[in-house]
Amino acid sequence: MSSSSDAGASSAEPGGCAAPAAPGDRLERVDTPALILDLDAFEANVAALHAHAAARGVRVRAHGKAHRCPGIALRQVAAGAVGMCCQKVGEAEGFADAGITDILLTNEIVDAAKLARLAQLARRVRLGVCVDHPDAVRALALACAQHDARVDVLVELDVGQGRCGVASVDEVLALARAIDRAGPSLRLRGLQAYHGGAQHLRAPAARAQAIAAAVGRVSQARDALRAAGFACDEISGGGTGTFAYESGSGVYTEIQPGSYALMDLDYRANEADLAVPAMRQAIGVLVAVMSVRGGHAVLDGGLKAVSVDSGLPSVRWPGWRVRGVSDEHTVIEPVVADRAGGTGGTAAGGSGAAAASGVPTLGQRCVLDPGHCDPTVNLHDWVVAYRGERVEAVWPVLPRSASR
Amino acid sequence: MSSSSDAGASSAEPGGCAAPAAPGDRLERVDTPALILDLDAFEANVAALHAHAAARGVRVRAHGKAHRCPGIALRQVAAGAVGMCCQKVGEAEGFADAGITDILLTNEIVDAAKLARLAQLARRVRLGVCVDHPDAVRALALACAQHDARVDVLVELDVGQGRCGVASVDEVLALARAIDRAGPSLRLRGLQAYHGGAQHLRAPAARAQAIAAAVGRVSQARDALRAAGFACDEISGGGTGTFAYESGSGVYTEIQPGSYALMDLDYRANEADLAVPAMRQAIGVLVAVMSVRGGHAVLDGGLKAVSVDSGLPSVRWPGWRVRGVSDEHTVIEPVVADRAGGTGGTAAGGSGAAAASGVPTLGQRCVLDPGHCDPTVNLHDWVVAYRGERVEAVWPVLPRSASR
Repeated sequence: MSSSSDAGASSAEPGGCAAPAAPGDRLERVDTPALILDLDAFEANVAALHAHAAARGVRVRAHGKAHRCPGIALRQVAAGAVGMCCQKVGEAEGFADAGITDILLTNEIVDAAKLARLAQLARRVRLGVCVDHPDAVRALALACAQHDARVDVLVELDVGQGRCGVASVDEVLALARAIDRAGPSLRLRGLQAYHGGAQHLRAPAARAQAIAAAVGRVSQARDALRAAGFACDEISGGGTGTFAYESGSGVYTEIQPGSYALMDLDYRANEADLAVPAMRQAIGVLVAVMSVRGGHAVLDGGLKAVSVDSGLPSVRWPGWRVRGVSDEHTVIEPVVADRAGGTGGTAAGGSGAAAASGVPTLGQRCVLDPGHCDPTVNLHDWVVAYRGERVEAVWPVLPRSASR
Repeated sequence: MSSSSDAGASSAEPGGCAAPAAPGDRLERVDTPALILDLDAFEANVAALHAHAAARGVRVRAHGKAHRCPGIALRQVAAGAVGMCCQKVGEAEGFADAGITDILLTNEIVDAAKLARLAQLARRVRLGVCVDHPDAVRALALACAQHDARVDVLVELDVGQGRCGVASVDEVLALARAIDRAGPSLRLRGLQAYHGGAQHLRAPAARAQAIAAAVGRVSQARDALRAAGFACDEISGGGTGTFAYESGSGVYTEIQPGSYALMDLDYRANEADLAVPAMRQAIGVLVAVMSVRGGHAVLDGGLKAVSVDSGLPSVRWPGWRVRGVSDEHTVIEPVVADRAGGTGGTAAGGSGAAAASGVPTLGQRCVLDPGHCDPTVNLHDWVVAYRGERVEAVWPVLPRSASR
């Protein structure tokens, strides 16, 4: 996979603010806070996923919601992804502008103005979208007719997530008929069947069991569609926590993980399964020490640099841990054993890891590992891609308006 | 206060994405998710704060970290704020570019590259900054000398927050001497003394007690500075939860609340104090129903539209509540009584509020009230300012890179 500094670096300044680094910079000179991407880890994750998928005969359609970064998406496609998944029309537009030609909106779009943009986009890339309501099918068909566009349609089946998607085979068939009646602008491709709730079940057996149940529901719906004369060529689903089970099911044709390329603490907290390639922590939030007090130090990135919805970040500083995160600050403190026999380590200044790592000094850089990668990358205008200690490329993240 | 649609509206497109609305649009047509600002509530909050401060003889320096929106900052200054507070050099640059001429960085800046930008900024606006370490004083003085700039300096005193700031009078005096030795580029103005930890103590008595302790420490430091021949003309601090106590202390000269103008669930959860003007909920996140299932509905904004670090948002839909928030979705469900005698209301379809409010339909708009305003506004490129049901102005939010 190519990662040359020119193949995605940009001198554009989203919103008028300069990038935090330039290709060739040493990592320690990157302006903070900054979202950094370890290219060695990223490339290893992408290679591991594609080897896994190739061995099982399923396609990879990487989920772009994890990063919203065209520079990353282009490398995922170059490595063999058939295209990208998006959740939002704005994300799809941004990826299409960057040269991604095959996009699946793994989400329902029902607003007329958004459907008009979707139909216009479908005239320049291959585009798929999900439906879970007959009104949405009619609105989609109308928009496509107005713009002379064709889109692929997946019926979203709720396989345990409890969010979007229809729950019964009867509803799947009703939507298939609605798509069929809508005319040639809509082409029924199959089923969207993502089980978000299974991704972070800690025990592999629990994840396997959840996906086995999903596979049962998917098979039933697929068979019913085919028995009624409908096509069901594509069954897409599977995230970073479960893709091994979907890809080994013999039913899913396509997996759509996103976090695997970047990783975060929440996915790392899943218990390992030998069937699943281990992914490396590729992203981090580079911050700098801005205040050193008696029992703690303060880092210059907070809630606007790292998301805490899935728990506090950790700090890559042996002997130190995160005490708290506020809007613009993260406070770290020495790890101390919480009680006799505790395994928390030793206080800074004592012997062991903390003393070995030393006490933070003003201006020193360190890295936070986020609890949740998707909303963390979304807090940054730029991804600083580095190898070793050297910046290779700086890629813009789509604007926040991509949420629309 | 002026809120005309032209005095802050912008047709600029940060990052290349169009604004979600235009002046004159009806609120129900605004593209979602969007950050919306009720101008009547905002103006009432600003007026209430200034009346309160004027009656107590303290200045208002509104904190711009709450919104990072120059359109809002300009209106706070027009209403009588002496200037703005910022946490980041990037925020200060953005506000200066928009015409704010008096800015206090209520934060420590220690990085050489950031200090160079700070010194350059100080050549075009009145600029203050905080210090809590003698090394930072030296670095600041060096940057100012290199750029022939002058800055005001506040020594940050830790008055209970436990984050940045020195803890002892001796340290305050040592920093005052360092500022003095640094020469004419640095002017000691006084003390930064913000107690973040007191803002959300629920009981008014607890907040009053925390600030009384802070006032004691501030008085001691101020008296010591003056006894040693140093100036201490400005004592700045006080947030939305406590400004009434700082402003009534006779010691603080300036208050720096930010959230008061916008408000959020966390501040609304504070028990009311008669001494504090009640602030109205002015911001919300406009979302649309994208899926309607049996027992729940799905809204088209999630963690990338509303921050959950201070708890889940609430939904302005009588009889419904938020079940959960994921990256791009918020799931709402009917309120049901949790147990016999519970006060949670009734299920949708039954009698009472839920039935009166009806069941969500596809595409319908509703509003989420965020738990925490600062990181929520930071998730949006635009603030849609409205009055009644009509959009009056659409203001850009500073880019995410303002975190640097």
